[in-house]
Amino acid sequence: MKYYIGIDLGGTKVRVAKVNEEGKIVEEYSDFSHGLEGPRELILNTIISLIDKIDNVKGCEGIGIAVPGPVDVYNMVMPMAVNLVGFKDYPFAKIIEEKYQIPVYLDNDANMAGLAEAVLGAGKGKPIVYYLTHSTGIGGALIINGKVVSGQMGYAGEIANIIVKDNCKKINENLNAGAVEAESSGTALARKASELYGETTSTKTLFENARKGNLKAQALIDEAAKNMGRLLATIGQIVDPHIFVIGGGVSKDSDLYWPKMIETYHELFNGIKPALVTKAELKEPGVLGAAMLVKERGNV
Amino acid sequence: MKYYIGIDLGGTKVRVAKVNEEGKIVEEYSDFSHGLEGPRELILNTIISLIDKIDNVKGCEGIGIAVPGPVDVYNMVMPMAVNLVGFKDYPFAKIIEEKYQIPVYLDNDANMAGLAEAVLGAGKGKPIVYYLTHSTGIGGALIINGKVVSGQMGYAGEIANIIVKDNCKKINENLNAGAVEAESSGTALARKASELYGETTSTKTLFENARKGNLKAQALIDEAAKNMGRLLATIGQIVDPHIFVIGGGVSKDSDLYWPKMIETYHELFNGIKPALVTKAELKEPGVLGAAMLVKERGNV
Repeated sequence: MKYYIGIDLGGTKVRVAKVNEEGKIVEEYSDFSHGLEGPRELILNTIISLIDKIDNVKGCEGIGIAVPGPVDVYNMVMPMAVNLVGFKDYPFAKIIEEKYQIPVYLDNDANMAGLAEAVLGAGKGKPIVYYLTHSTGIGGALIINGKVVSGQMGYAGEIANIIVKDNCKKINENLNAGAVEAESSGTALARKASELYGETTSTKTLFENARKGNLKAQALIDEAAKNMGRLLATIGQIVDPHIFVIGGGVSKDSDLYWPKMIETYHELFNGIKPALVTKAELKEPGVLGAAMLVKERGNV
Repeated sequence: MKYYIGIDLGGTKVRVAKVNEEGKIVEEYSDFSHGLEGPRELILNTIISLIDKIDNVKGCEGIGIAVPGPVDVYNMVMPMAVNLVGFKDYPFAKIIEEKYQIPVYLDNDANMAGLAEAVLGAGKGKPIVYYLTHSTGIGGALIINGKVVSGQMGYAGEIANIIVKDNCKKINENLNAGAVEAESSGTALARKASELYGETTSTKTLFENARKGNLKAQALIDEAAKNMGRLLATIGQIVDPHIFVIGGGVSKDSDLYWPKMIETYHELFNGIKPALVTKAELKEPGVLGAAMLVKERGNV
C-alpha cells in the first residue's frame, strides 16, 4: 500500500494527514496555523512539527499542500497570500521538499477539494469533472483525468468574478458588478435577505423562511438559482464536463434551489447533453485532495 | 523524421496532407467532399482515394481528421453532423483505422485549428493555450500541454452560446439571447450594420466606414469588442490560460476592435495577470492541427 501526506493549511488551522491509496486517512494531526498573525517562520515550523509526528514520512510518496489562495504551480509559490502572513512568493514548498527529500506539490484549497471529489468522491470515474463550492463565496475547479487545471497563475476556477447579470450594483472592489459571487453566494443571499426584511438576516433564516412558504424568500432564492444555472451553462460551453459536483454550505439547502438551477442550466446550454449535476460527497476534501495531488503527481 | 496524415473534412471540400514532425506539409491533395449531398459512402470513398495518393501511408504514425461539428472523442463519432450527410454516429474513423492499420484520431475543425496554433503557431511553448476563432461564427478550443480538451460530447469550446449581454433579442433558435455569437460575430456585425444603415451592409463595409472615421460604425464595433473582452475575462476566470490566440476572418480587422477588447478583458478579469492575447499565425490550421492530433496522440 502506498501512502501520501496531505496538508490543509488555512488562515486559522492546519491539518496534516497520512492517507493511503484508497483515500483513507490513517493518521491525522492539527494545530493553529498562525496564518493570520505570522510570522511566516512560525507558520512553517508549525507545519513541520505536525509532519514530524507522522510515522515514516520518508516512506510516503510525497506531500501535497492545500493553501487558501491562488498558486503559481509552475514556480510552486503563492503569488498572493491574504490569509498567510509573509507567504507571498515564499518558497515554503521547496523548503519542505528539501527537508524531507520527498516530492512536494502545492495548490489551492478549492482545487484540492475538487480533486478529492474527482478522484475519491462524487466524480470518481468521470474523465472531466467540474467542482463548484457554493458557500459564503463561490469557487470552482476543473479536473481532467485526475489532473487539476490550475492556470498560469492559479486563477483557473476563480469563477466568483464571472458576470451572470447586467445592471447590478458593484458590491465590493474585488468583484465585477453582477458577478456570480456578488449575486448568488451565501454572503449575497444574506445581503439580499437583509434588504428584503429591513433587518440583518442570515442565509439560514432566509432558507427557513422559504421552507415556511414565504414567497418573497423563495423568489430571492430562485433568482440566485438562475444565476447559478447560467454559470453552469457558461462553464459547460467552455469545458463540457461529464459531471458537475457541487459542495459548500449553501448546497446543504440544495432542495430549495437545485431544480431552478438545473432548469436554467439546461435552458441556456446548447450541447448534445448537459452534464450530470450532483452534490459533493466527502467530509474532509482538503487533506484528501492534497494527498491525491501527490498520487496524481501534481497539476497539468 | 516522423510523418502524420492530417485530413480537413468540410461540407464542401476535403484536404489530405502528409505533415512532418516540424509541421511542414510534404504532400497534399484535395477534392470536393460531397458532404452536403452524400451519400456517406461517397464521402468516405473520396477521403480514402485521397489517402491512397499519399506516399507510404503505413509508414506514417497515424491519421488525424478534422470535421465540421462536435465529436464524441470517447467513441470516435460525431453525435451530430449537419454538414456531412449520414455521418451522425457513423464509425468512419474506425473504418479508416481498420483499412490502413494505423491509429486514427478525430476532433472538430475549431479544436484542430487551436491545436495547430498551440503546437506550431502563436501558442507554441505555452502550457495552456486558449484559441478563439472570430469569423462568421465564434468558436474556441482549450489546449493543455498539447492536448485538446474536447469535453464529454465535443462541446468544450462551443463558446458561441455564452451570454455576454442581457436584454437582447433572440436572433435564432440555436443561440441564447445575448450570446456572444449573436452579438459580436461577423454575422452579428453585418446584421447590426444593416440595421444601422437601413440597407444590407457587409462586415467589410462596416469596417471600411469605421476606417473612414464614421463614428456610428466605430461605436457598433466597440460594442462588439466589449462583448469579446467580456468573453475573454469569463474564459480567463475558468481556465486562466497563458495565452489567447485569436484567428478567423474578423480578426483581420483587429486594429479596429482589439484595444477595446483588451481594455474590457483587463477590466473584468481579476486574476494576478491577464493572459497575453495574440493573433493566429498559421494559414492552414485545419490539416496541420489534424496531423498534430496524431503527434499528440489524441485528446485528453
